[in-house]
Amino acid sequence: MANVLTRLARTIESRKGEDEKKSYAAKLFARGPEKCAEKFGEEAIEAIIAATKGDRKNLTEEAADVIFHMFIMLSSRDVKFKDVLDELRRREGVSGIVEKQSRGKG
Amino acid sequence: MANVLTRLARTIESRKGEDEKKSYAAKLFARGPEKCAEKFGEEAIEAIIAATKGDRKNLTEEAADVIFHMFIMLSSRDVKFKDVLDELRRREGVSGIVEKQSRGKG
Amino acid sequence: MANVLTRLARTIESRKGEDEKKSYAAKLFARGPEKCAEKFGEEAIEAIIAATKGDRKNLTEEAADVIFHMFIMLSSRDVKFKDVLDELRRREGVSGIVEKQSRGKG
Amino acid sequence: MANVLTRLARTIESRKGEDEKKSYAAKLFARGPEKCAEKFGEEAIEAIIAATKGDRKNLTEEAADVIFHMFIMLSSRDVKFKDVLDELRRREGVSGIVEKQSRGKG
Repeated sequence: MANVLTRLARTIESRKGEDEKKSYAAKLFARGPEKCAEKFGEEAIEAIIAATKGDRKNLTEEAADVIFHMFIMLSSRDVKFKDVLDELRRREGVSGIVEKQSRGKG
Repeated sequence: MANVLTRLARTIESRKGEDEKKSYAAKLFARGPEKCAEKFGEEAIEAIIAATKGDRKNLTEEAADVIFHMFIMLSSRDVKFKDVLDELRRREGVSGIVEKQSRGKG
Repeated sequence: MANVLTRLARTIESRKGEDEKKSYAAKLFARGPEKCAEKFGEEAIEAIIAATKGDRKNLTEEAADVIFHMFIMLSSRDVKFKDVLDELRRREGVSGIVEKQSRGKG
Repeated sequence: MANVLTRLARTIESRKGEDEKKSYAAKLFARGPEKCAEKFGEEAIEAIIAATKGDRKNLTEEAADVIFHMFIMLSSRDVKFKDVLDELRRREGVSGIVEKQSRGKG
């Protein structure tokens, strides 16, 4: 079901070092990890506003933007999507409350 | 590979209406969609800080937190993860630059 | 010392309804309160990134941007800067810990 | 009118190095500049949500929180509120559109 994410992560990874005029991701990579983080933040805020308004269509689109820009941010720091999935897998079976406490975030 | 996301989305969805003392997700749902959006925003900021620092281990953990809280935010507004994947699938083959322009975000 | 803020708040307020081609604030007002909130959020994120990097010159500039866009966001919802100052004045003499607790945010 | 800001900036500055059990600001300083930036970000998001909802009372309170935590963030990096005011003063008489362009943000 989520194979589209695997493809997306791979496509974004392949944009590194490409001509920045041809690809939006390449353009962001060229501006550096902080700019990638900033763009991710902008999309997160748009998602928050859509969720606050209760605009479901817009929230769906913004969530897609969040994922897309999160992948760019991760890739700009050489973090693989697979590593994030491994982290989520590691947490399975651990309740959120217990897990957060174990990282001192409770 | 990304089946953990499908399981996570399903687990979070099942937390709706559960006893809020037993589950972190149920506790957030009980506080309403705006609180869910706020928590998502907090995790997004932590991810931005980790990316800015270049702390890859922390960035991996925060990205996992972002996904977890994005699912809660979506679920609080009855948006399915599947809808977000459909949106990403719809965009495949469309370059980011063209796609953003078509939504007036270029 | 902070009279520049009073002037800035007054200038921004006066931009409401002005020709949006002539003023950046008028352009934002025309796009609505949510767009004003979104822009404020973008500047907040840029300030967070500057603070994380420890880039003091950039942090100074971004903090100025945050204030500027906060005033636009407030004004888009007819909240006066004076009301915010009154709120801060109300809190004087109340320790942050006590004050936050009294609003259930401790 | 805005003397309360001058007093607030001075009070927060004086909290540096104080016993963190006695003051909320001292507690944040002790956790470091990134934690201060993170808290500022949380308050910014709460202000964005209040603005999106059009809850004017809440927006007033959250804007006060934003200022308070912005001062802590600035102070954690030894940036003076006065420097931010100087930056705003420098921009007076320069239209936002021109000013942003001159910093390559147009």
